[in-house]
Amino acid sequence: MQELRQDPVTGRWVVIAPIRGKRPKEYEQTPKPLPSITAEECPFCPGNEHLTPPEVYAVRDVDSEPDKPGWQIRVVPNKFPAFSQNPSPLNDSHSFIKRAAFGYHEVVIHSPRHDEEISAMPVERLVKLIEVYKLRCVQIGSDPNIKYVHIIVNHGVESGASLEHAHSQIFGLPLVPEGLQDELGGSLWFSQSKERCVFCWMLEEEMKTGQRVLFENTHFLAVAPFASRFPFEIWLLPKRHSPSFETVKQGEIGDLAHTISKVISAYNCKLGNPSYNFFIHTAPCDGSDYHYFHWHAEVFPRISSLGAFELGTQIMINPTAPERAVELLS
Amino acid sequence: MQELRQDPVTGRWVVIAPIRGKRPKEYEQTPKPLPSITAEECPFCPGNEHLTPPEVYAVRDVDSEPDKPGWQIRVVPNKFPAFSQNPSPLNDSHSFIKRAAFGYHEVVIHSPRHDEEISAMPVERLVKLIEVYKLRCVQIGSDPNIKYVHIIVNHGVESGASLEHAHSQIFGLPLVPEGLQDELGGSLWFSQSKERCVFCWMLEEEMKTGQRVLFENTHFLAVAPFASRFPFEIWLLPKRHSPSFETVKQGEIGDLAHTISKVISAYNCKLGNPSYNFFIHTAPCDGSDYHYFHWHAEVFPRISSLGAFELGTQIMINPTAPERAVELLS
Repeated sequence: MQELRQDPVTGRWVVIAPIRGKRPKEYEQTPKPLPSITAEECPFCPGNEHLTPPEVYAVRDVDSEPDKPGWQIRVVPNKFPAFSQNPSPLNDSHSFIKRAAFGYHEVVIHSPRHDEEISAMPVERLVKLIEVYKLRCVQIGSDPNIKYVHIIVNHGVESGASLEHAHSQIFGLPLVPEGLQDELGGSLWFSQSKERCVFCWMLEEEMKTGQRVLFENTHFLAVAPFASRFPFEIWLLPKRHSPSFETVKQGEIGDLAHTISKVISAYNCKLGNPSYNFFIHTAPCDGSDYHYFHWHAEVFPRISSLGAFELGTQIMINPTAPERAVELLS
Repeated sequence: MQELRQDPVTGRWVVIAPIRGKRPKEYEQTPKPLPSITAEECPFCPGNEHLTPPEVYAVRDVDSEPDKPGWQIRVVPNKFPAFSQNPSPLNDSHSFIKRAAFGYHEVVIHSPRHDEEISAMPVERLVKLIEVYKLRCVQIGSDPNIKYVHIIVNHGVESGASLEHAHSQIFGLPLVPEGLQDELGGSLWFSQSKERCVFCWMLEEEMKTGQRVLFENTHFLAVAPFASRFPFEIWLLPKRHSPSFETVKQGEIGDLAHTISKVISAYNCKLGNPSYNFFIHTAPCDGSDYHYFHWHAEVFPRISSLGAFELGTQIMINPTAPERAVELLS
């Protein structure tokens, strides 16, 4: 069985080819460990605050000092940033076009505990983490040179992570990235032709059939999207329409924390603690009107490799149908 | 040092952030081996022809029989195809859009020798392999339901390969994939606004400065593109403008074989036999006029991971500037 499915937001096609799931290597990978370092060497452990650039924000004990222990969550500039507020001057690139990589690249250290993974965090601590996301998002987005704020988690070596100690990264970008432009364009088209939000429509359709719903609470739906690009890909959709993550309300943050925890726990339990990626897609902060967009988060384990088919065509081949993924994760 | 560079063909932005190359894990990976199987178990080894679907084409000794030993190159349908000439009938997807995954998915077994990698093949045998690509490309492209033929090599476990015995894959697709649409759109735009082919322009620019040129012969240029997405990414550009790989001439095939061999040998020698991906981008076979396009091949080792930044924004962060990549590979 194989079929082409179209993502209703972007229009992109995905091949769902479950027969390929029979190939022996599928799902048998055990995650490679990241280079193991002790708490003494870890730049994200308390006591080693001097190993990172000075903190830009922290949730810390009232009587504690910046860049000293006593924090619960700590935000620092990335030591090896992809974007910088003082980017290098550009040398001549002849006829080719380049621009300064102006921007922000911050690390949010989730916890003073070296080995505390997201699904092991009490929900109230996860709530604090999401509050920090929101706060930094507002702060970075208020810089008029920043057009988009991208929040991510890379967990495990296959995810692109380079350090074990659990952390998120927040990027402030000088442009609206292509991955967002595709979703914005598709959302606008849908909204103009059908007079409603494509994500609100999707929420309604998915709740109607239920076959791809992994988890639901008052404010969020965790659903394996119809045209999932990756095995066990899950989207976390806020039920209330809002273009921007920054507008998330206190009660919604609790439900989001609970939903994230449920999804990662299901991955850990059913797929053996896989590496995973998590990111938030939200409206750009470039001053334009994105009322037709609907912010959301996307998460997927890194248990299959992208090959030259996927990287050359931008069409993903997914060996696990989302309906089956939800069965296996439940 | 970090900067944003724009690909002149597609307009996509890439972050070149060499400082990140200092992170300890960069370039230190030793490739994981693929599940090792003996020649007796390998479905691509001579004597095991019954383990694959019947061959659709082979370069074989005159007195040998189909699906028996005596071949030098063998083309068989993929046993676990992503696209099929008899795709499964579609069940109801309610309001979501799907279509049959009609198409071709073939495997080209490079050699009867289980352990013969591309760079170890004599150039005249690599010429034969490219001739087989061309032949199958013409054949599959003549099916009026096929809009695009995609030729790839996945080598090594990080590349998405699942079998060790060297092979290519050829896909016949019922649509023009997004990865091509981006290049076609950009090429058309450049051709209309500058009255010339963007790839011909790039060839001229790169030969002028030489700083990103890895190798050159009469008919091909191997160049690290200005906006390389991956460390050590190399494009193989034919010097003669032609939209379609199918039009490659005999003398050009020799030079292409030699260029591929040179690039893969450089990877093996300088990067320690990394996994790599290779694909050809050529004009669609949908009957439209693509005179403004310029076929080419792209190849890159899989030594860095894509994370949630890259997968969520579609902007790649490349820790190795192409100028430095060429220095290191030379």
